[in-house]
Amino acid sequence: MSKQTVLTGITTTGIPHLGNYAGAIKPAIKASLSSDVNSFFFLADYHALIKCKDPARITQSSKAIAATWLALGLDTDNVTFYRQSDIPEITQLSWVLTCNASKGLMNRAHAYKAAVQDNLDGGEQDGDKGVNMGLFSYPILMAADMLMFNANKVPVGKDQIQHIEMARDIAGRFNHHFGETFALPEAVIDDSTKILPGLDGRKMSKSYDNTIPLFDTEKKLKKAINKIVTNSLEPGEPKDFNDCAVFDIYCAFASQSDIEAMKVKFTEGIGWGFAKKELFELINEELKGPREEYNRLMLDTAHLESVLQKGAVKARAHSEPFMQEIRKKLGLGCL
Amino acid sequence: MSKQTVLTGITTTGIPHLGNYAGAIKPAIKASLSSDVNSFFFLADYHALIKCKDPARITQSSKAIAATWLALGLDTDNVTFYRQSDIPEITQLSWVLTCNASKGLMNRAHAYKAAVQDNLDGGEQDGDKGVNMGLFSYPILMAADMLMFNANKVPVGKDQIQHIEMARDIAGRFNHHFGETFALPEAVIDDSTKILPGLDGRKMSKSYDNTIPLFDTEKKLKKAINKIVTNSLEPGEPKDFNDCAVFDIYCAFASQSDIEAMKVKFTEGIGWGFAKKELFELINEELKGPREEYNRLMLDTAHLESVLQKGAVKARAHSEPFMQEIRKKLGLGCL
Repeated sequence: MSKQTVLTGITTTGIPHLGNYAGAIKPAIKASLSSDVNSFFFLADYHALIKCKDPARITQSSKAIAATWLALGLDTDNVTFYRQSDIPEITQLSWVLTCNASKGLMNRAHAYKAAVQDNLDGGEQDGDKGVNMGLFSYPILMAADMLMFNANKVPVGKDQIQHIEMARDIAGRFNHHFGETFALPEAVIDDSTKILPGLDGRKMSKSYDNTIPLFDTEKKLKKAINKIVTNSLEPGEPKDFNDCAVFDIYCAFASQSDIEAMKVKFTEGIGWGFAKKELFELINEELKGPREEYNRLMLDTAHLESVLQKGAVKARAHSEPFMQEIRKKLGLGCL
Repeated sequence: MSKQTVLTGITTTGIPHLGNYAGAIKPAIKASLSSDVNSFFFLADYHALIKCKDPARITQSSKAIAATWLALGLDTDNVTFYRQSDIPEITQLSWVLTCNASKGLMNRAHAYKAAVQDNLDGGEQDGDKGVNMGLFSYPILMAADMLMFNANKVPVGKDQIQHIEMARDIAGRFNHHFGETFALPEAVIDDSTKILPGLDGRKMSKSYDNTIPLFDTEKKLKKAINKIVTNSLEPGEPKDFNDCAVFDIYCAFASQSDIEAMKVKFTEGIGWGFAKKELFELINEELKGPREEYNRLMLDTAHLESVLQKGAVKARAHSEPFMQEIRKKLGLGCL
């Protein structure tokens, strides 16, 4: 059986936080170690352009994401790790797919429909007000991301399943017209991965402003953990570990036996301060090595850039001839 | 004063006919000889994809267009002549512009609106039925074609003026956000260029199936000219040269003195057969040299391809560093 190709894109608008680490980065790196898969990871900087017109933020985010994944052990000899905008074939394919995607399909995209609904709810006559064409057509760019590397598996959140379906639809149309060319990607929803709660107990997310930093200083990590909202039970009073952010975050990092031990401590009335201290120590133990490496990498931009350049060469070893093949099928090739 | 950049794209779906020659190719080649201009001509094969899913037709059209322009004296040492799909920066820029184009702008595009109207007129509930995203978003690709080479002047038909306005709008947005980057293109409508009538007196156009071939055999040229519809006045009866396809086509090729002489012949009652014979001889005289060259070139695909490859190198000498500069402004460049 041939290897499965797994593809993951990371939009370059933010700095990875603890929730990204536990929910996405850690499991993705672990999965990439399997010898059954061919893993592709890319900095989705073309996607960042849709919402972000701040070049410094995109650059800083690209750097931080690259440094984070490398510091956490992404093995670039074993995976293909590249910056989307370094692969010119992506946008070439995107245009080709644009001509094979129906407008009706894009009309039904969740993100676009939500933007229109927001306008209408706000009393706007024109649902398209403020909507840019990037927002409207990015499912096609995503299809190009996947189809270029014949990705079989694309790990996504539930809100992204539609994009995979759209890519399948577009790939199917192309294959129908021009002969078998693209693998049809499948969404992979990993239900076993816990969504990490943030400081306020809701899902940890930049948009809720409730994140715990991943690679800031030890001091800031401690400070953030101390801010996790709890109830006001005193030390000695038994505490419920269900629906408790401190406990849930602890579980994402602890071994099964540590988890069981912590349950007992909750029942025995561990003080919040002590619980948070244990949580901090657990996380810090896991992160302190990578944090040092992250800090080192963040100062070595030239190295990060060279890793991305090597990744681009690796990615283009496939994308360049594949795009030639696609052009030939379309009649755009050599005369 | 610096040179003006003039850009012309030719969609690769058809074989050039006499109307293309008189109305577009001949004046464009003439204009490209001026030392005041920097001319760019390209085979718009990405645009062909919007409506054409027949690879053989696109390839054959690309070949015929390249051979036609070269046979007619396009000086590729003096102009930049390339195939759109050989310039990866075009689609890269197109995505960048996509993120800077509002969807509302595309909603108002004539070609899209016409497609929707056709659906609604045909009793369709869904105006977008059968509309592909290529049709919806090609004004952005056209903007990329123009802005990539900082085209100042774009010779277009009246139906294309809107595309130039859209390119200006998108370029203006980009310049506003990221600093002065793109020249704002201007439409050039040459009212002095006559629209050549076809066999039936309507504008010569492939869609009316009324064309006269440009570089088919001499015999077929004669045959086509003999098919031009006339009234049934006999030889000897005076004929009106106004609103007469034979005369109008004659004017597109004859000198002023020949035109005056032909007016006299019409008034004196020249027979249609003789008038058509004179028309054929006039056109054939102009075309027979280029026709030979065209036939030679059509057999020398390797030469055509090498001309296009040289053109691509020339175009990319500008587009590659320019795209790097644009990426840098957006935060997509080197870390």
